[in-house]
Amino acid sequence: MLNPLDKIKTQVKRLSAYTLNAPECRVKINQNENPYDMPEEIKQEVMKRLANRPWSRYPTFVPVDLLVTMAKFSSWRADGILAGNGSNELIQALLTVTVGQGTKVLISEPTFTLYRLLIEILGGEVISVPLKSNLQYDTDLIKQTAKEKEVDLVIICSPNNPTGCVIKDSDLIDLLKDFSGLVILDEAYHEFSKHSVVPLLKQFSNLIVLRTFSKAMAMAGLRVGYLLSHPDLAKEIAKAKLPYNLNFFSLTAAIVTMENFHLLSPIIDKIIAERERVFVALSKIPGLEPINSQANFILTKTSIKPSDLMARLQTKDILARDVSRYPMLNDYVRFSIGTEEENNELLETLKQTFS
Amino acid sequence: MLNPLDKIKTQVKRLSAYTLNAPECRVKINQNENPYDMPEEIKQEVMKRLANRPWSRYPTFVPVDLLVTMAKFSSWRADGILAGNGSNELIQALLTVTVGQGTKVLISEPTFTLYRLLIEILGGEVISVPLKSNLQYDTDLIKQTAKEKEVDLVIICSPNNPTGCVIKDSDLIDLLKDFSGLVILDEAYHEFSKHSVVPLLKQFSNLIVLRTFSKAMAMAGLRVGYLLSHPDLAKEIAKAKLPYNLNFFSLTAAIVTMENFHLLSPIIDKIIAERERVFVALSKIPGLEPINSQANFILTKTSIKPSDLMARLQTKDILARDVSRYPMLNDYVRFSIGTEEENNELLETLKQTFS
Repeated sequence: MLNPLDKIKTQVKRLSAYTLNAPECRVKINQNENPYDMPEEIKQEVMKRLANRPWSRYPTFVPVDLLVTMAKFSSWRADGILAGNGSNELIQALLTVTVGQGTKVLISEPTFTLYRLLIEILGGEVISVPLKSNLQYDTDLIKQTAKEKEVDLVIICSPNNPTGCVIKDSDLIDLLKDFSGLVILDEAYHEFSKHSVVPLLKQFSNLIVLRTFSKAMAMAGLRVGYLLSHPDLAKEIAKAKLPYNLNFFSLTAAIVTMENFHLLSPIIDKIIAERERVFVALSKIPGLEPINSQANFILTKTSIKPSDLMARLQTKDILARDVSRYPMLNDYVRFSIGTEEENNELLETLKQTFS
Repeated sequence: MLNPLDKIKTQVKRLSAYTLNAPECRVKINQNENPYDMPEEIKQEVMKRLANRPWSRYPTFVPVDLLVTMAKFSSWRADGILAGNGSNELIQALLTVTVGQGTKVLISEPTFTLYRLLIEILGGEVISVPLKSNLQYDTDLIKQTAKEKEVDLVIICSPNNPTGCVIKDSDLIDLLKDFSGLVILDEAYHEFSKHSVVPLLKQFSNLIVLRTFSKAMAMAGLRVGYLLSHPDLAKEIAKAKLPYNLNFFSLTAAIVTMENFHLLSPIIDKIIAERERVFVALSKIPGLEPINSQANFILTKTSIKPSDLMARLQTKDILARDVSRYPMLNDYVRFSIGTEEENNELLETLKQTFS
């Protein structure tokens, strides 16, 4: 009898699946979500617009309204934008049209784990450049390795998950000028750094930018992301994007949220202010060493074993993220920035734990 | 300066994108949607369950409630089920873990065009077996070709889009027994044939079944599909499925719809009855030759050029599907079964056109 697994590619069978172990907790600071939720006014407007929308009809083939709103919102051209079911789908589409057996993709680890997983499934070779020992990007080494190993793609997450470090525009420009491949800049957390590389798209046709509605935009439950690039590239990447990938509910929610961004903006500012406050407070706790972050989370070195610290926090109904299995991060945990009350609870519990 | 397209795979650049030209019309019978929409009772129950669901929180990593409901609904085990953002996403995940450069995938054309597109993007080789001249599956030729060409996968859509033909269980069993690769049976339209091959999963670990909520289940706008297979296979395919692929709205809608299937069932029966009525009526129109269908559409040979017939229907605000660019279907159009009133309008217009 046939073994049904015989037809699965060897490189896939070798891989461990992407998983998350997440027990339910009252204070949920493990996934870098917006803790304040979507403003009620936006939710009501979405419901109003969808009141008569039949569920049985497909979305339009090209979601023009959404793309035009994204173009206005991001100051880039609509024909250079693709919308996806989370930015994950667009990373996948992008890698599907570029990565085959032996394609070399440079990533700087520790970073978002999905890049490596998708590259390996597609048969590509991961060229991993470590962060510097201070957990910042080593852009010289990235440029040098990209050149020496003749890599095809470079993926940089900035601000980086799970460290919070960023690549400077000047370094990115050096890389873009110097390099004959594509550079993918994932700016999932850019709102928390008050900075975007989208203005560089005009100048560099080998730059691709990824964005998400799952973090600052308070829509993790609805799965929307977008990709910005030269229109010629967007056209090719679109071939691997599935038709009708965005349901009408998420699509409308994204439009209304962009149109009413003034309602979200103060919430984002509040999260940034809380990040600064939490950073200072964490620094004062003996046994903890927080890393400066431009995102809505703080990577923190801990003198207590991460899994033990997680267990301790969970007894207080707090769920943070154990990142000790990432390269270089044996002794680290990651705290998403919660509401002011949640952050206070976290800090109080940590003070007790490390006293 | 770098040409940004240099890093796109040649096989991708060669491909035409999947497109759909669909002007807005009052009578929309071009996408095999359920014309009666979701029953209001189901919509209200979904809204009720989601009233307090924060938008900013990710769905659970594994949607256990959904998988358990799907298991009960389909009489298969939950650990052998994957849920996707439309069945398209699961076709993609399945092909991503199985198809690389040179992998041979047999499809029987004309069929759903996405299979070929995805196989080619992934570098696989399409082995195309034509339908018989009466537009039925040629299972002997499929079996023989699968063996002779040593193909790795066979994909069969049954009832087939756009022809409506089916593969008989006995033929499918012969193929499954005889063949050392995987057989993917896409039963997107199975509700309209009152038949499913899911019971065969127990016996054949090389069978994979795909289902969708976009047709009979009246949820095309919400994008939900599922894959059923041996749990070992599901586990490997899951590696290429993106995390958090289903938003909370679609996920809840799918659960409530399955729990209240008794409300949809009479609607499906009505569509089947309408299909039989429309078939007889089309047969009586000189210049039209409808093909027997087990789905919610009828492929029809037309003595008027398909593009001309489409234009004529559009003047009456009716949008059907021109399928003349599919192999073997130069002279054919496809009519989805609409509401009784819509079908009457179509038939009236056709009678006038062909008189």
